[in-house]
Amino acid sequence: MASSSSSLTLSQAILSRSTTPRHGFHPATSIPSFSGLKSTTSSAATSVSHRRSAAITPLSVRASAAVETLHKTTDALVDKSVNTIRFLSIDAVEKANSGHPGLPMGCAPMGHVLYDEVMRYNPKNPYWFNRDRFVLSAGHGCMLQYALLHLAGYDAVKEEDLKQFRQWGSKTPGHPENFETPGVEVTTGPLGQGIANAVGLALAEKHLAARFNKPDSEIVDHYTYCIAGDGCQMEGISNEAASLAGHWGLGKLIAFYDDNHISIDGDTEIAFTETVETRYESLGWHVIWVKNGNNGYDEIRAAIKEAKAIKDKPTLIKVTTTIGFGSPNKANSYSVHGSALGAKEVEATRKNLGWPHEPFHVPEDVKKHWSRHVPEGAAFEAEWNSKFAEYEKKYPEEAAELKSIITGELPVGWEKALPTYTPEVPADATRNLSQQNLNALAKVLPGLLGGSADLASSNMTLLKQFGDFQKNTPEERNIRFGVREHGMGSICNGIALHSPGLIPYCATFFVFTDYMRAAMRISALSEAGVIYVMTHDSIGLGEDGPTHQPIEHIASFRAMPNILMLRPADGNETAGAYRVAVLNRKRPSVLALSRQKLPNLPGTSIEGVEKGGYIISDNSSSNKPDVILIGTGSELEIAAKAADELRKEGKKVRVVSFVSWELFDDQSDEYKESVLPAGVTARVSIEAGATFGWGKIVGSKGKAIGIDRFGASAPAGKIYKELGITAEAVIAAAKEVA
Amino acid sequence: MASSSSSLTLSQAILSRSTTPRHGFHPATSIPSFSGLKSTTSSAATSVSHRRSAAITPLSVRASAAVETLHKTTDALVDKSVNTIRFLSIDAVEKANSGHPGLPMGCAPMGHVLYDEVMRYNPKNPYWFNRDRFVLSAGHGCMLQYALLHLAGYDAVKEEDLKQFRQWGSKTPGHPENFETPGVEVTTGPLGQGIANAVGLALAEKHLAARFNKPDSEIVDHYTYCIAGDGCQMEGISNEAASLAGHWGLGKLIAFYDDNHISIDGDTEIAFTETVETRYESLGWHVIWVKNGNNGYDEIRAAIKEAKAIKDKPTLIKVTTTIGFGSPNKANSYSVHGSALGAKEVEATRKNLGWPHEPFHVPEDVKKHWSRHVPEGAAFEAEWNSKFAEYEKKYPEEAAELKSIITGELPVGWEKALPTYTPEVPADATRNLSQQNLNALAKVLPGLLGGSADLASSNMTLLKQFGDFQKNTPEERNIRFGVREHGMGSICNGIALHSPGLIPYCATFFVFTDYMRAAMRISALSEAGVIYVMTHDSIGLGEDGPTHQPIEHIASFRAMPNILMLRPADGNETAGAYRVAVLNRKRPSVLALSRQKLPNLPGTSIEGVEKGGYIISDNSSSNKPDVILIGTGSELEIAAKAADELRKEGKKVRVVSFVSWELFDDQSDEYKESVLPAGVTARVSIEAGATFGWGKIVGSKGKAIGIDRFGASAPAGKIYKELGITAEAVIAAAKEVA
Repeated sequence: MASSSSSLTLSQAILSRSTTPRHGFHPATSIPSFSGLKSTTSSAATSVSHRRSAAITPLSVRASAAVETLHKTTDALVDKSVNTIRFLSIDAVEKANSGHPGLPMGCAPMGHVLYDEVMRYNPKNPYWFNRDRFVLSAGHGCMLQYALLHLAGYDAVKEEDLKQFRQWGSKTPGHPENFETPGVEVTTGPLGQGIANAVGLALAEKHLAARFNKPDSEIVDHYTYCIAGDGCQMEGISNEAASLAGHWGLGKLIAFYDDNHISIDGDTEIAFTETVETRYESLGWHVIWVKNGNNGYDEIRAAIKEAKAIKDKPTLIKVTTTIGFGSPNKANSYSVHGSALGAKEVEATRKNLGWPHEPFHVPEDVKKHWSRHVPEGAAFEAEWNSKFAEYEKKYPEEAAELKSIITGELPVGWEKALPTYTPEVPADATRNLSQQNLNALAKVLPGLLGGSADLASSNMTLLKQFGDFQKNTPEERNIRFGVREHGMGSICNGIALHSPGLIPYCATFFVFTDYMRAAMRISALSEAGVIYVMTHDSIGLGEDGPTHQPIEHIASFRAMPNILMLRPADGNETAGAYRVAVLNRKRPSVLALSRQKLPNLPGTSIEGVEKGGYIISDNSSSNKPDVILIGTGSELEIAAKAADELRKEGKKVRVVSFVSWELFDDQSDEYKESVLPAGVTARVSIEAGATFGWGKIVGSKGKAIGIDRFGASAPAGKIYKELGITAEAVIAAAKEVA
Repeated sequence: MASSSSSLTLSQAILSRSTTPRHGFHPATSIPSFSGLKSTTSSAATSVSHRRSAAITPLSVRASAAVETLHKTTDALVDKSVNTIRFLSIDAVEKANSGHPGLPMGCAPMGHVLYDEVMRYNPKNPYWFNRDRFVLSAGHGCMLQYALLHLAGYDAVKEEDLKQFRQWGSKTPGHPENFETPGVEVTTGPLGQGIANAVGLALAEKHLAARFNKPDSEIVDHYTYCIAGDGCQMEGISNEAASLAGHWGLGKLIAFYDDNHISIDGDTEIAFTETVETRYESLGWHVIWVKNGNNGYDEIRAAIKEAKAIKDKPTLIKVTTTIGFGSPNKANSYSVHGSALGAKEVEATRKNLGWPHEPFHVPEDVKKHWSRHVPEGAAFEAEWNSKFAEYEKKYPEEAAELKSIITGELPVGWEKALPTYTPEVPADATRNLSQQNLNALAKVLPGLLGGSADLASSNMTLLKQFGDFQKNTPEERNIRFGVREHGMGSICNGIALHSPGLIPYCATFFVFTDYMRAAMRISALSEAGVIYVMTHDSIGLGEDGPTHQPIEHIASFRAMPNILMLRPADGNETAGAYRVAVLNRKRPSVLALSRQKLPNLPGTSIEGVEKGGYIISDNSSSNKPDVILIGTGSELEIAAKAADELRKEGKKVRVVSFVSWELFDDQSDEYKESVLPAGVTARVSIEAGATFGWGKIVGSKGKAIGIDRFGASAPAGKIYKELGITAEAVIAAAKEVA
């Protein structure tokens, strides 16, 4: 019993750590309260364990031979199940009069084989750690996944949820959203992201398996499946991620390519005539072609079997399908891609496929057939829990680490590892200080891993105590992403969403967030707490010039929902930024870090950073300074210098570090008033970036010093001077406004 | 003489059209005044024509056999020239103590062969229309290009310019910038962009050749060359663009792949083990491997010859080189990639390569050898000018069109094609109104061409009078980009920078600007007047949900320098947005357009749009309304409705359309005061996007209504209501502030 309760705690853990409230209307959906599921799960598990020796194939056998056991099911029943998936999709889109029926109709066979015959999961605990992961990279086809989750018995997608497809507050939004629908692993829709997420999920599995598996216990052991469409294949991000997957030899990644030859603009012939198979082979993948994806069940099964036999390469299974299969007048045309079929064509399709049922009907035999997944899933988890209990006895240290990764509970006292600094510590670039933090944290956070897009030695991201995560050294924690920012971001989303305690970080020059912004937005939306280590954060990088100098980037992330933009000024603030970033597991963080050296300023602190904006020095009293100087990052030093000069002239000057606007916004009105009193309108801000947005902070009587043009190629000091980012400019502005 | 002067006018034309001032400190560098060059060019041309029958191979022969004629040059002299390129690069980086010597040292041989033996250009008129284009996609190696431009006789890169490498205001910035350095075609540095630009340049050539060449006159006929590095190959954008280049069969695109096996993080083995050749073959390219790029001149020449013989496919020439070739201790290591060699290693390299010269020295025989490019280039242009004069006589209509494309002079009265609307015209989505404008403009603007990233039928971008630009129909103007936003943006940059009169537009859903932001930033920086047609611009798209609903995007472009963010509200404003976009050839435009229908509002106008912000209705007098309601795009209607209600209650209400903040910023203080008088602090803004930035407009006493969270999946009206983007909310806010 002890081991069982321990295991239950583990797989059903709730993250009790402090997270900021969600960016909207469903604060607790992303990581649901498992307590509510507890009884269901455990009773199911119990009932299954009673039956295990009877009707159901022993799990240990079934698990290792998932594909083989399933052709017990008659082809007729499979056909029926597949048509159920098709019509649930058709009906939901029809009812919403909005959506994408074409993909589910074409991919229903592979969907059926995956969810009914191949994948291991527990419908009553969608977060069971060792489940197989599935990603619908072609996210517009989400009704496929909703239909499958519904048949499999997931609580999130009941019949009424299918009927609420694409409606306000439903569990079945227009694209798959992990934070809405337990059972959906990642948020897809923007094409190409999903297959890159799948690479991240598979990386996480390979890494954890290498770290924690023992000769007598494969405690981490699951596959990652993905369905990608033509659109995903055209996007550059998929090539980036696939190149890395091949390089890393992610043998347990199996991606289906829904080769239906139709995209929104018509036949793919008009824009997409490359040989996808050859390309994937060139990237180091094993490639299989299933020529009849519409009802070649055995072909699909055989392909999966073959893919599983290839251990050292990811596999692409190209499955040729007919988009909108079954629709007599719309199949194989773009018209079935993204619109409801219309009542008449629905009727014609029902006739064509011999489907006499009313909308949303699941035939009894299909229902019965799928009903085994609830007890089987519970048994899968129970079996794994027992395995873990044994593992825990034999390998208590590893088990504790793995547990922390599974639950996301941070080790007690981890914050003590964060370095602190005094003004006496020599000036240093915040990118270097960042590396000190990363290395300190890697010692105490078992789930911290990451790397750079070929700029490790510039971004300063290497974890010195670890080697490189590579094909043959997957237990290591330094990830080499190559020059692939977009793929890097999405892979990190996959890692973050694999397990709550995995804390991926990734790095490039701040300006190149432009390459990966789509992935970063998905981090924010899907509550993936990736840490973005973005160095060379201003004109301060100097000679590389305007192509490399961020200007509008800070503003652009301040405007993005649910992402923390942090621009620390020195050692303590960098440590504070890492504290915030680690704690915010559901809100990604962007750390803008300097290339150039910055002094450790008096008055900065970790605690200050956590408030977003705080006073680092003030010679006024009664909350009434003559002027407030506000700076961030490398310009806080300039604000402090200007304050020194102004104070010499007798002015009462407050200096505020405004390291994170989002965190400041989260503070009480009282606190905000204590830092930026409404009565003090004499305010000057300085930041080596766009002034856009500062108007609200400095007010109509204040001045925002910044850069509203592109930078230039020259030594950094020269650019600062020429563009007027100087203490002199602050002093002049202060005198003007005060 | 008549024809000659006509031709001179043509090839040396200055764009006299109204463009907005450049975003910085060098207002006139991008398109230099050709009048200054006139005498040089024409006198050179004259002197050459005197000598043409003597020493220099007749141009018509040389032009068609450029490769063959050049092995007259002895290998020793080529070696010397190549080493000159290497040491100019080494010396400039050393003097700046900043830069990237590794690539120029490795790529000097291919650089020499290209600029000295293969390419046709006129150093004294870098803008000669029919020149071969060269793009250094691996832009960090810019000293290679500067050295070549210097040797070839370009005025922008004299010895003193090389000595000013990476210094403030120099013509030799840290990465190649077309707006700084005539002779540089596009701005590179962010990896992968350049090869995509090259695809755009080659597309432009193929399109113009198909439209304008005649059986008796190949008036458009040049190659596009590119050097890309390992980093470019890793970036997804290069795969997107290369896939299109293969699909389109761009036979005159020849890309060199500098295969040096080193990237910043070390050997490419750590992150890049795919087979690039096979990948390119799968994309429809012809691939050649030059195994000795360090001094295999004949191999390089043969490869180019072979590439030119392949007419229906682009060619990738993989050239294996040694990064930092010649440096005894640093070659073939990452340490030579991005830092100066250091005095000691420079000395060792001088010894190793037998280079006794002082820094920046160009040996006399090398100088003499290269000196022919000035007269030859002038003769190339003169010959082409004669050819054009003849063409003009035979085909006056085509010549006039081509001239407009070459010079960028818009046809007189083109604006009259823009549609206008009255409030009686039924409501329509601005994406549909956009299509009306595009189709109207295509009739009068010979250089307008473009398309969508597989959303033509959603973005409404098809030009109905034209077919698809395809391999066998390159004269058509609808470009099918497939689902490749990033490649699309960069290809459009290449098109825009090919000829001043080419006006490329491209389209996707507004939210997917995240995929192409890096390319859009380069549009802004490099003054490429691309028109970004971005539909589905808010939660108004409805059911597709938050992955598809832009929130922070408007703000993010308002913060970006030198780009116009326009969000028209109805028919007249959409026409106004197009007027602005077409006129701004050096400032790209982003048009945010609605999916949903919007009424034609009283008071909107093209002229209003040109001012950025303007009053559409007002019942106050003396510039003293009780309250100012400010809206953009689809929310202007809501502001107008709220005003109607408030006026019924006796309020004096002004409604302002704030369609483009940048254009409003360009207006006089007087005009601004007439729209937003400082004395009226009761202001309410409404926009279905982030409120970030609005603080400055509405002031501390005003209210900004917007959306500072992600959207949701539901019918559009429901989302508007739930998120409070309503007339009721505006009325309530107005009463609060007024």
